Amino acid sequence: MAFPRPKPTTMETLAMERANPPFNIRKLSIAMHGSEKALVLKEKFMAEIARHPAFKLSDIHDLSKDELRERTMEKFASMVYFVTTESLETFSLRMQLIGIADPSFWTRFGVAYGLFLGALRSGATPNQLSYWIDKGVLGLNGVIGCFAMTELAHGSNVAGLETTATFDRDSDTFVIHTPHLGATKWWIGGAASTATHAAVFAQMIVDGKKYGVKTFVTQLRDTKTFQLLPGVTIGDIGKKMGRDGIDNGYIQFTYVRVPRAHMLMKHTQVSRDGLVTEPPLAQLTYGALLGGRTSMVADSSNSAKKALTVAVRYAAVRRQFSSGKNEIETQLLDYPIHQRRLMPLVAQAVAMGFTGLRLQVMYEQMTQALDTMEPNDPNLNDILDKLKETHATSAGLKAFCTWACLDTIDKCRQSCGGHGYSAYSNFPLMYADFAVQCTWEGDNTILSLQAGRSLVGAWGGAIKGKKLAPGVAYLNDPAILTAKSDSSLSLSDIQRAWQCVAANVIKKAAEEYVSHLKSGKSKDQAMEICSQSRFIAAKVHTVGYIFRLFREAVEEMDDNEETKLLKTVARLYGLWQIEEQQGYFLKYGYFTAQQIDKVQDYVDKLCAEVRGVAIPLIDSFALSDHIINSPLGKWDGSVYESYFAQVQAANPTPKEHPYFNRLIKPLLDRQNEDMEDPGEAMALEEELKELEEERKEAASSKK
Amino acid sequence: MAFPRPKPTTMETLAMERANPPFNIRKLSIAMHGSEKALVLKEKFMAEIARHPAFKLSDIHDLSKDELRERTMEKFASMVYFVTTESLETFSLRMQLIGIADPSFWTRFGVAYGLFLGALRSGATPNQLSYWIDKGVLGLNGVIGCFAMTELAHGSNVAGLETTATFDRDSDTFVIHTPHLGATKWWIGGAASTATHAAVFAQMIVDGKKYGVKTFVTQLRDTKTFQLLPGVTIGDIGKKMGRDGIDNGYIQFTYVRVPRAHMLMKHTQVSRDGLVTEPPLAQLTYGALLGGRTSMVADSSNSAKKALTVAVRYAAVRRQFSSGKNEIETQLLDYPIHQRRLMPLVAQAVAMGFTGLRLQVMYEQMTQALDTMEPNDPNLNDILDKLKETHATSAGLKAFCTWACLDTIDKCRQSCGGHGYSAYSNFPLMYADFAVQCTWEGDNTILSLQAGRSLVGAWGGAIKGKKLAPGVAYLNDPAILTAKSDSSLSLSDIQRAWQCVAANVIKKAAEEYVSHLKSGKSKDQAMEICSQSRFIAAKVHTVGYIFRLFREAVEEMDDNEETKLLKTVARLYGLWQIEEQQGYFLKYGYFTAQQIDKVQDYVDKLCAEVRGVAIPLIDSFALSDHIINSPLGKWDGSVYESYFAQVQAANPTPKEHPYFNRLIKPLLDRQNEDMEDPGEAMALEEELKELEEERKEAASSKK
Repeated sequence: MAFPRPKPTTMETLAMERANPPFNIRKLSIAMHGSEKALVLKEKFMAEIARHPAFKLSDIHDLSKDELRERTMEKFASMVYFVTTESLETFSLRMQLIGIADPSFWTRFGVAYGLFLGALRSGATPNQLSYWIDKGVLGLNGVIGCFAMTELAHGSNVAGLETTATFDRDSDTFVIHTPHLGATKWWIGGAASTATHAAVFAQMIVDGKKYGVKTFVTQLRDTKTFQLLPGVTIGDIGKKMGRDGIDNGYIQFTYVRVPRAHMLMKHTQVSRDGLVTEPPLAQLTYGALLGGRTSMVADSSNSAKKALTVAVRYAAVRRQFSSGKNEIETQLLDYPIHQRRLMPLVAQAVAMGFTGLRLQVMYEQMTQALDTMEPNDPNLNDILDKLKETHATSAGLKAFCTWACLDTIDKCRQSCGGHGYSAYSNFPLMYADFAVQCTWEGDNTILSLQAGRSLVGAWGGAIKGKKLAPGVAYLNDPAILTAKSDSSLSLSDIQRAWQCVAANVIKKAAEEYVSHLKSGKSKDQAMEICSQSRFIAAKVHTVGYIFRLFREAVEEMDDNEETKLLKTVARLYGLWQIEEQQGYFLKYGYFTAQQIDKVQDYVDKLCAEVRGVAIPLIDSFALSDHIINSPLGKWDGSVYESYFAQVQAANPTPKEHPYFNRLIKPLLDRQNEDMEDPGEAMALEEELKELEEERKEAASSKK
Repeated sequence: MAFPRPKPTTMETLAMERANPPFNIRKLSIAMHGSEKALVLKEKFMAEIARHPAFKLSDIHDLSKDELRERTMEKFASMVYFVTTESLETFSLRMQLIGIADPSFWTRFGVAYGLFLGALRSGATPNQLSYWIDKGVLGLNGVIGCFAMTELAHGSNVAGLETTATFDRDSDTFVIHTPHLGATKWWIGGAASTATHAAVFAQMIVDGKKYGVKTFVTQLRDTKTFQLLPGVTIGDIGKKMGRDGIDNGYIQFTYVRVPRAHMLMKHTQVSRDGLVTEPPLAQLTYGALLGGRTSMVADSSNSAKKALTVAVRYAAVRRQFSSGKNEIETQLLDYPIHQRRLMPLVAQAVAMGFTGLRLQVMYEQMTQALDTMEPNDPNLNDILDKLKETHATSAGLKAFCTWACLDTIDKCRQSCGGHGYSAYSNFPLMYADFAVQCTWEGDNTILSLQAGRSLVGAWGGAIKGKKLAPGVAYLNDPAILTAKSDSSLSLSDIQRAWQCVAANVIKKAAEEYVSHLKSGKSKDQAMEICSQSRFIAAKVHTVGYIFRLFREAVEEMDDNEETKLLKTVARLYGLWQIEEQQGYFLKYGYFTAQQIDKVQDYVDKLCAEVRGVAIPLIDSFALSDHIINSPLGKWDGSVYESYFAQVQAANPTPKEHPYFNRLIKPLLDRQNEDMEDPGEAMALEEELKELEEERKEAASSKK
């Protein structure tokens, strides 16, 4: 049936939105991707996976958990070639893209190459590393790894893990053992059905003495038969909220022996005689964590952009209510409230993107500085200070960026009305897949408190006159606490606003902390009691940090139309967040009540301004139809046609009704008499009454 | 394998939390349920479904969409007995419980009895209603109904629906037709595979004239064979975010004829000759909408309580980090930040519960007043005013309560760390099922704006000296705009705070509206431009309204320990929300910056206080283990054992690995030589160099 289309069609509408953008989309896109090379590579990766059958995405909503997992393994095989031949930089960009397109697979892949291989890289001696690489860790030809850290009863508290690794001198082995149910390794990605080896975190015990948690490479399955090795019990963790393409499992070890040489000994060594040598300093793991968090900031931006690409395109073509009779209905995007729903989120996604890019550069610089640093380097303290500060800030960034992205996905879903609830809109899967980002690699609330703790420390340094690292240098400015707006609402006014308010909330947390210390609490207790204030400090500091990095990036750019737009976007981000958290700005007097009203007006205006170029701006996010995998966000605007086609393709009518005869027919055919009818009882009552009447009458007639 | 358990066990911990509560849990529970009768009925319903095989819930996460739907139909059959024999009051309570336990089934049931039967009740003449009841609408023995309103391109704008119903005088029928793809009926619950008839909303056309949207009962399938009737095309909408147990479908009509008598004619009539009689006044539909919204407020409270029951019990037994060496780890619930994460949400759920109860009473009173009202009733205007106000307020309540609940579910999930991401925690399904509440029965944002529009109107009335309906009567108080806190942070101080701030934000919205009118905008345009301020007005008014209803309920209670606790909870709710929205309180000067700091301290304190009785308080929500369906929230605290048992039961190890031979073995067995190695190319270069060297040497030796 060929349906006529109403005019203008959704496709025509989207084409009109794209006509004559006031800036160059390609140039804007390059700026957002950091370089032309990064953009070109991304386009290449997108084309590759769009054509690869294992990366088919349109049918993903209707696959069972088992089908998803099997497909994950097909993708795994297709990636081995790249991991063994591409440069790390190129491959990282490829993985970043996979992370947006297919988070389930990304996770399985990350477990093998990020976590398992990462554990070897950071924990193995050079010879140990060579050994495992020879065994086939890179090409998966011999070793498919997983990462067995978390236990059923222990997640965040890694030091509290309860799996034991007891040294047996006679056999020169460690005995890995799960002492009770709570110590069962849990959530282990890849364990359920695809890993041969695990990096097992366990409490090392030598001669009865506990040495804390170390890592032991433990074989789980025979590589020829895939049978579990003796003493290894593995089960499937089953259904999850999202990421069902990865086979998370649980593992219980019952006195499993691993050779002593399979303990990773870069830091702590155990000799043949059971002599334990511990490293002079605690392991320097800042760098490793920083890498993960940096990529999560980028992923938050990218995932938010993916959801927004769908929501904004849909809002441009969806029409609802007309302003007059016989007039064409209004595009959702033309409603001020709809602009309010989406444009600030667009600004936030762009802000997180630039923050991610700059973090990446900082991270690379630091890694290089650390790699080349000598123990007696005169800049050692400076570098370590900067590292510590960035590490703490990145904890807050991980938390607030992942939260912001999760929130964005759900707001985008809601902004598409009922259709956002269809699996084929892809919002449900995006949400379900992304949700875990708020929990893993450190629960967001706990990370926020860590960031807050560091800020309290920085404040302590500032009042002692210590020169602080760049991220918190504003605390060194004695005038910042009492700064006032110059009423311009310019980028510099906004930045000062955030610094003023951040300094005040940090000061509040620090003062609470000190007062609890003075009242006799321990440091840990005092920190716990001021948790809420630490949390607020981290929240405000983090938004200010994102704004500053975004602003710096934009101000370094050439003065052109793209930069002009990005400045508008930066302003929208900064002012919208001020509006969202206006309480602090009023409380610390940076803005007056009248100025806050002006902020609201200005945000309205900026939303309308960004709306004007919303479609070209979204296009610059450069996400293919294959990646966004949502008919509602189709590039050409053929929203309803694509949606209908996908629904039809995914849901063919079965030849026979699956349960009509068993369940529906008996209901429909049921006669009322088939059921005991309370009415029958009532009819009996009537009859009884009639009988009684008759008897009365009979009795009276006898008289 | 019998594992030893660490001491104290999670079960012992939960038992300790329950020892000696300072109030009577049963009495508190009765207060929360409105009456002892309601609580006893709920317990009866819970016992019934816990024992009914169709209501098995523990395996629900691993059922396919098709299996879920088949089970829905089993439940449907089991409910017919109750719907035909129970009083409406009892049955409504039963449905409320089903709504918490099993939202998918609730929806299928609601489509038949709420929407389809509701459409008949509100739109059919008495004879039409009898006709359909005789046909079997109540017992499903002859008619299984669905509700065909929404179209692919039209949701919120019902007046804009495009399906046509054209009167054909010759055959005395209406011709129902889908003119183009966008007019396809979409999301129609029950259409895909279980309905025989639909209440179809279509544009009525008689003699070429359009009369707006009317309802036509249209048969979809033969009741004997279940084959689609001629001209009816139906397809399955497929996977959704949640509620996959209901078979949503699409319907396209191609010139389908229905008898004229199947148009519902209570309001508009069409005679045999095609004479159209329209009702003198627009349909009074306030009442019907109000009922749905009232039940959504109750459902928001109940669903939030379900999530919180799991999260709070888990937080009581989960331990993480110890404060000293060899000390037992701390219960999550003892961390101030964890109290902050959950206790305000508990208070909010309780507040919404009392609001729902009071709304229900108001709704029943109004329905009665409307039913008995005569056209010349002297109280007519008062009643209508009150109805209109409650109708507008209920729009805001629906929006902000469903948002609050959705937010609560996800915060509860996150508060359980990684385990919250397991399907078996039940949070993923709770979230996915509940999410649609923010969209259907009016998109939350649009409803908020409707509430805001009404508040702007109320303000206009207030400044003209009109006596307002109870919900907005505070706008009549001339002193409210400039009220100040008496620093007590008492319940009355809090209530005044909300009224002061609500009055100010409403005034702001109203003034913006008037200024746009003065600048020449139309009423609709002016309303659109001040959307953001209207939204804020609705948000603040609604929280204040919830707080007021909660407070009123609590202050009417006897003075006892349960009431004392509820007052603490009310205070926590009111103050926490002040903290969340502190900007308005500072902006309008109700609180000073110092007082706001006190609010934060007080919220900390109240969180700790409520934490002290958190487990007994949660127990008073009276939700069975079957209903909450989450091992993490088991009543007896056997969290890990139950979780492990459920994971094992749901995921038996398959006899054979499903894809080892096809996908994993080839990877593991692959020799490095199997892949083209760029290293080979490099070896060739070396060889070439060697050859060149040799040639050179040979050449030089010749010299």
